[in-house]
Amino acid sequence: MSQINLTFPDGTVKQFDSGISVQEIANSISISLGKKAVAGKFNDQAVDLRQALVADGAIEIITKDSEEGLNVLWQTAAFILNEVLADKYPEMNFGEAHADEHGFYLDTEKPGQAQLAVTDFDDVSAAMQQVILANEPIEFASLSQADALKLAGNDPYQKELVEELTVDGQVAVYQHGDFTSLAYAPVLAATGKVKIFKLLSVAGAYWKGASSNPMLQRIYGTAFYKQKELDAELARRQEAHERDHRVIGNQLDIFFVDPKVGAGLPYWMPNGATIRRTLERYIIDKELAAGYEHVYTPVLANVDLYKQSGHWDHYREDMFPPMDMGDGEFLELRPMNCPSHIQVYNHHKRSYRELPLRIAELGMMHRYEKSGALTGLSRVREMTLNDGHTFVSPDQIEDEFKKILDLMIDVYNDFDIHDYRFRLSYRDPANKEKYFDDDEMWNKSQKMLKSAMDDMGLDYFEAEGEAAFYGPKLDVQTKTALGGEETLSTIQLDFLLPERFDLKYIGTDGEDHRPVMIHRGVISTMERFTAYLTEMYKGAFPTWLSPKQVDIIPVKNDLHLAHAKDLQSRLMAHQIRVEIDDRNEKMGYKIRQAQVNKIPYSLVIGDQEVADNTVTVRKYGEKETETMAFDDFVTLLNHDIETYSRKN
Amino acid sequence: MSQINLTFPDGTVKQFDSGISVQEIANSISISLGKKAVAGKFNDQAVDLRQALVADGAIEIITKDSEEGLNVLWQTAAFILNEVLADKYPEMNFGEAHADEHGFYLDTEKPGQAQLAVTDFDDVSAAMQQVILANEPIEFASLSQADALKLAGNDPYQKELVEELTVDGQVAVYQHGDFTSLAYAPVLAATGKVKIFKLLSVAGAYWKGASSNPMLQRIYGTAFYKQKELDAELARRQEAHERDHRVIGNQLDIFFVDPKVGAGLPYWMPNGATIRRTLERYIIDKELAAGYEHVYTPVLANVDLYKQSGHWDHYREDMFPPMDMGDGEFLELRPMNCPSHIQVYNHHKRSYRELPLRIAELGMMHRYEKSGALTGLSRVREMTLNDGHTFVSPDQIEDEFKKILDLMIDVYNDFDIHDYRFRLSYRDPANKEKYFDDDEMWNKSQKMLKSAMDDMGLDYFEAEGEAAFYGPKLDVQTKTALGGEETLSTIQLDFLLPERFDLKYIGTDGEDHRPVMIHRGVISTMERFTAYLTEMYKGAFPTWLSPKQVDIIPVKNDLHLAHAKDLQSRLMAHQIRVEIDDRNEKMGYKIRQAQVNKIPYSLVIGDQEVADNTVTVRKYGEKETETMAFDDFVTLLNHDIETYSRKN
Repeated sequence: MSQINLTFPDGTVKQFDSGISVQEIANSISISLGKKAVAGKFNDQAVDLRQALVADGAIEIITKDSEEGLNVLWQTAAFILNEVLADKYPEMNFGEAHADEHGFYLDTEKPGQAQLAVTDFDDVSAAMQQVILANEPIEFASLSQADALKLAGNDPYQKELVEELTVDGQVAVYQHGDFTSLAYAPVLAATGKVKIFKLLSVAGAYWKGASSNPMLQRIYGTAFYKQKELDAELARRQEAHERDHRVIGNQLDIFFVDPKVGAGLPYWMPNGATIRRTLERYIIDKELAAGYEHVYTPVLANVDLYKQSGHWDHYREDMFPPMDMGDGEFLELRPMNCPSHIQVYNHHKRSYRELPLRIAELGMMHRYEKSGALTGLSRVREMTLNDGHTFVSPDQIEDEFKKILDLMIDVYNDFDIHDYRFRLSYRDPANKEKYFDDDEMWNKSQKMLKSAMDDMGLDYFEAEGEAAFYGPKLDVQTKTALGGEETLSTIQLDFLLPERFDLKYIGTDGEDHRPVMIHRGVISTMERFTAYLTEMYKGAFPTWLSPKQVDIIPVKNDLHLAHAKDLQSRLMAHQIRVEIDDRNEKMGYKIRQAQVNKIPYSLVIGDQEVADNTVTVRKYGEKETETMAFDDFVTLLNHDIETYSRKN
Repeated sequence: MSQINLTFPDGTVKQFDSGISVQEIANSISISLGKKAVAGKFNDQAVDLRQALVADGAIEIITKDSEEGLNVLWQTAAFILNEVLADKYPEMNFGEAHADEHGFYLDTEKPGQAQLAVTDFDDVSAAMQQVILANEPIEFASLSQADALKLAGNDPYQKELVEELTVDGQVAVYQHGDFTSLAYAPVLAATGKVKIFKLLSVAGAYWKGASSNPMLQRIYGTAFYKQKELDAELARRQEAHERDHRVIGNQLDIFFVDPKVGAGLPYWMPNGATIRRTLERYIIDKELAAGYEHVYTPVLANVDLYKQSGHWDHYREDMFPPMDMGDGEFLELRPMNCPSHIQVYNHHKRSYRELPLRIAELGMMHRYEKSGALTGLSRVREMTLNDGHTFVSPDQIEDEFKKILDLMIDVYNDFDIHDYRFRLSYRDPANKEKYFDDDEMWNKSQKMLKSAMDDMGLDYFEAEGEAAFYGPKLDVQTKTALGGEETLSTIQLDFLLPERFDLKYIGTDGEDHRPVMIHRGVISTMERFTAYLTEMYKGAFPTWLSPKQVDIIPVKNDLHLAHAKDLQSRLMAHQIRVEIDDRNEKMGYKIRQAQVNKIPYSLVIGDQEVADNTVTVRKYGEKETETMAFDDFVTLLNHDIETYSRKN
């Protein structure tokens, strides 16, 4: 019998008989590993425990206590769900079943009928529980393509998947009793190994993620080896759901997306538009005061501009297709604003006296994200970036870097953002060829950024290999509501675009010199920042940002509405966003509604308030009310707005 | 000899011998007409006086005192220019020669050499004068295509034009001596008839207007029958030049367009961006106070949305090409915002309680204008419209119409715009089939608009046939700096889109009803309005709009700069846009520069001002200065800004 050489993660190489299974390999190492093993990885591909290995390669044992081990559990739960649904609904078609970040999903379709709904979950879960209790083996097998196609019957998705998954005329499958499923990924060896599972939700998902394809019904669920893990996951989901900007965005009527009219293209409703307008005016005014010059530049340009900048070569798959204008001109929706600001720089001859020249814009850009990646306001195809490019002489880099950092920290304080960390992103010293080629520049500028951070007494961590192609950068990493991390702000040095566009300034010596560009974004895109703030504030925006700031509730419309209207116009004269709830509803209901809508202040106006020219104020989230003179309330409110609602 | 029947403009039909020339026809009517005749029009086509007519048709005699007669003079001057240039520069290639609104132009190219420049005009004019003094006949002739091509020689443009202008194998030409020109349009019969002409300017112009074609050098000139007409035209040009927003836009660094990167796609420099931002905040705040709800909606949508709205069928030639996203989705840059606002309306079920629902946006749109039609900021391909759509029940139309008019008049006052007139645009009663088919709607709504105007005591004129397809409208017609008229604002009733999108609201009766849409724009697009204001103010923007509001001039930098900087920061704390002119230049120069840059206030700071905490203030355009306490200046300035610089 021939032998194969298998390399383990620690680098050791062992010899085995060809045809040995992954399970046997695990057993050969230790009994406990044999027991904990749930799947293997051969040359980085997940494989079933029963897979016979017949060639040299890299081997890894996946155990149940690892993240990948959890994936095997989830895939098994999806298999059982598939089996139960195929049994209950013989006419049902099936797309793929997969593990995702926190569980599994299975795509389904009942042709011409109402799709599976959350109300069916009890029945389906009960049937799954029976399969699990039976604890029968799930067999791993291989079918000819012809046999697999026969099993797929009239299901168009399964037929397409059989074609896709055929290797050398054979298709790997899992079988339990009469039920056969394509082997999308390894599953456990018996149905009883899935102990704790829960079906969670349904959502539409295009077949293969393409909006021109039919919409399938995606069933989401999760499973764990221990109950307390499931409990923790459900609590995390509940918290995430309550913070999810898509959920809050819908409750508070902030935005919507209509995938039929354009996936990833949000419509900002009046409430969302108020937040966005407030953010835009805030950041523009802040930047003007910091010496930036704001511009407006076109979202379209000849595609040649992006050939010159290098975006066309290196970034094309994220760009929209060029438009053929019919006379040899191809116009492109810009994916970034840097070339536009270079146009502004190059419109005049520049002198050292003008540097640092700070060009800023709320720049609309378009990026082609895959429809599956689109998420509410946080991943979109059309976005408006708080963008800025500073053109400096080389000896101004450090000072300007510090100025930008000062601006960022100032802005973060205004929004009460504190849960973030700084990342200094360097080039990977082992892969210098992946970066703009100038050793001296890299060494000098990386040192410069580090020393600036040290000077300012800021904590940071260093990340080799995270730099941009064209220079090192600083990223501000914030925690997302869902526990992830994302880059909210960034400062990037760029030595390359000034070369590509032959940027110049006349120095003190009267000669031409090359400036350095600093790309920087402070509050990211209006879309992503609004999503971030919505989740951070759980929809309870501070007064200055809140779409509605004051809700006036007359105790009785016939007696108190006139006075309420008078107060409303007096508040509006102070640019306060105020509405009157004059619906014919009970007062308790109106007060609760103001809380549900997260309006910072509700004012109840009854006889006493009219007589004394007072207002009875309830702050959002507080049970107590306070009665005060109307003018005092205006002072309180203005202070609240001016201080961005921070307690200081 | 056969006879032909010719119909004259007054409807009379006369019989002539076939082959009669236009000149002979004019002579046959009267001797004076024969003398004044410079060309003819046969079936609406301009023809030479010597053209023999051989078929029935409509005839008109063009006389020298008419606008079309001037065109013939201009075409003749262009012919003489062409002759002189062909003689002076044998290697020169020629595009077309044509009359335009105020004179003529001729396209030229010196291959591989510096192009003809304004500095060559004296020489060229002198040579033209000689041709004119010689007063020799210009012959009208016909060549075979082969002969015409031989004459075109190596000139690629002339060769292409010969192909284009060939009719039945023959090409009409004009000849004077050795020189032959294609007959683009009728010219006068002798060179001496051009008495008073002037070459004016040069500019680049793409061959056939396509940016993928070579750029030719276009020579502009004009000519008149009388000196005083030329003088008037030159004065008009001077005035137009001084007001031209492109000229001022360049002087004051407001915007630029880079045709290589995108024709009709303006870049707003910091000065222009300040004006635009101020306009945007102004109109948004005004509209919010008037009960509008502002939104942001995407510039892209599935092309199906514009199929449903009807734009795809009726407006396609003004639209950009759709982008094929590769999965069956075609995305289109919107040409109008109405469908986006309908999306907002339709996102919720609407009730009569919510009407009138006023959705507004600074909506970016893209329209494909021919490159020849593009003009600075006033005709562009990317524009942001102060757009709004009010959804009303039918009985609210008149009230809402008045409210919109109130808003418009209020806004016009703020900008000091008074030179406008109202046009009520009705359908053409003789062509009802060109309009949305609902007699009752048209009669009722036209009457309603008229009665609203009468109620408000506003002057207006009525224009039949100027309505939109979908309903009657009111246009506000303003005078342009160049003496033309354009529509700045509009209020349009729309009964069609609510049908097409099946818009509904629940009425007091609990049933579904169809709302009416009112499209309205108050200050037009940011681009066009900025162009309009620039020309109206001749670049001297009122303080609240001015990019720079205050220019501080220290008498001596070493003595007074510190104090100037102190004043600057105190003014900046009031959001005043202020700069210090600390260049090493003479004071008189700096004071003149502040006037050239049309900065509303210059402050001179010397010993006395520092000692007394005063400022010496010069208002733009005034010779006198006034010394006042700094705080009084701040009060004056704030009052100026708050009142939009109107003498209230």
